[in-house]
Amino acid sequence: MFFCICTQEIRKAGESEIKVSTKSSTVDLVTKTDERVEKIIINSLKQEFGDNTYSFIGEESVANGKPCILTDKPTWIIDPVDGTTNFVHGFPFVAVSIAFAVKKQLEFGVVYSCLEDKMYKARRGKGAFCNDELIQVSDVKDIHKSIIISEHGTDRNPEKVTKIFSTMQKILRIPVHGLRGSGTAATNMCLVACGAVEAFFEIGIHCWDIAAGAVIVTEAGGILLDVDGGPFDLMSRRMVSANNNVIAERIIREIEIFPVERDDTNVSKNQT
Amino acid sequence: MFFCICTQEIRKAGESEIKVSTKSSTVDLVTKTDERVEKIIINSLKQEFGDNTYSFIGEESVANGKPCILTDKPTWIIDPVDGTTNFVHGFPFVAVSIAFAVKKQLEFGVVYSCLEDKMYKARRGKGAFCNDELIQVSDVKDIHKSIIISEHGTDRNPEKVTKIFSTMQKILRIPVHGLRGSGTAATNMCLVACGAVEAFFEIGIHCWDIAAGAVIVTEAGGILLDVDGGPFDLMSRRMVSANNNVIAERIIREIEIFPVERDDTNVSKNQT
Repeated sequence: MFFCICTQEIRKAGESEIKVSTKSSTVDLVTKTDERVEKIIINSLKQEFGDNTYSFIGEESVANGKPCILTDKPTWIIDPVDGTTNFVHGFPFVAVSIAFAVKKQLEFGVVYSCLEDKMYKARRGKGAFCNDELIQVSDVKDIHKSIIISEHGTDRNPEKVTKIFSTMQKILRIPVHGLRGSGTAATNMCLVACGAVEAFFEIGIHCWDIAAGAVIVTEAGGILLDVDGGPFDLMSRRMVSANNNVIAERIIREIEIFPVERDDTNVSKNQT
Repeated sequence: MFFCICTQEIRKAGESEIKVSTKSSTVDLVTKTDERVEKIIINSLKQEFGDNTYSFIGEESVANGKPCILTDKPTWIIDPVDGTTNFVHGFPFVAVSIAFAVKKQLEFGVVYSCLEDKMYKARRGKGAFCNDELIQVSDVKDIHKSIIISEHGTDRNPEKVTKIFSTMQKILRIPVHGLRGSGTAATNMCLVACGAVEAFFEIGIHCWDIAAGAVIVTEAGGILLDVDGGPFDLMSRRMVSANNNVIAERIIREIEIFPVERDDTNVSKNQT
């Protein structure tokens, strides 16, 4: 399985001197490993299933100018290294995330948390698993007994940062048991799915960060919503994933929304 | 070794229905497991080394009215389950922390991160180890390339919470690569020691949370300071642990200090 190769690549690079280049800012790190692992995954999938049957949306491919649009065509959605900042620093949450969608419907998702050696997977209608054990979201409905996950993101725009901190502070003061953040959205969603936390929300994530996690959370009994309480939209870069509606809706009351450009915006512009 | 027994107890309890009682607030969880594990540790140490040679400072013993004062007598400082909130929720960082001090000097420390199965240990002058491999702090001196850890704590006093969030926001905006928090001070210090993050600071921790980690960080090449830049004081409930002075001093400029009662305050009062 190519997850072994991906992990070898990730661990090998983690142990060696990592030459870090920067994307949009000093905090959005990208390494050669991301690109290498994405190529390994895409090439393996093409070899296994043929070259023309599928579309691919991958973080690095999009960064290099490939389109980011979800069509009806069967599509692989790939994040080769989710948690690049963690990866560069050796912080223990780094994930490979692969999802598969047909007619815009997510069919299955796999998240491999490399350093923990935990393989999360789910197929629509078939349940969610961690290392082959069935997982379920927490049954907590009392917000005061919850742990909530969110992230500060990589954008240091002062207005966004202020809103993120303001939201976190209001949620902590509900009060909840605690706030956490693993540094990877894919892992955060798996922590919701296995019941370690009650919810994860973020504005600014990308479709490749959450596509696999979305299947895993819903198959583990959880729910997905937009941060305004509306339906979840994979390309909107906004999401609340929670164990149930009671927790999700209570959090949504506190979220201060800021604008982000959709994942498919540029592509739509290019195509029109 | 009693770490095996502790882990068995912690895992067994984690898998069963945990009856949670509350200490100071709904977010400061304590379970029977904490008390049971502390008893196992203290009894094992007494059995091994005799009943009257040593003093003991343990989180649960202190909660039950035992004194919390560091004398010249050889003293074991014990946190049976650091990260109780994590433990109750199944969030993957839970640590057993044991330190040993003679004449108020910390001589060695052991932190066992149970769910990760990582054993950190250090003896004064002999280096620090994770699963028997030598560990070292990060060599990053540029704050912009750092990850900083802190925690929101369990006290929901609005003034304290505001200062904690304000500090975190100022540090994020320096900018740094990211902010993290594992939910356990002992593990946070080990993450400094092994170079996964550059610094961890907190106001409100207790001596049993950080005594073992203090030895591990310094033996890994790191430093300890008070949050005002003065010398580290184990009983002050304030600490910055960092890979070097440059990082520590940059963070200290941003920390908004709020008052906390020393660990040894009540005892001093009782004794006078």
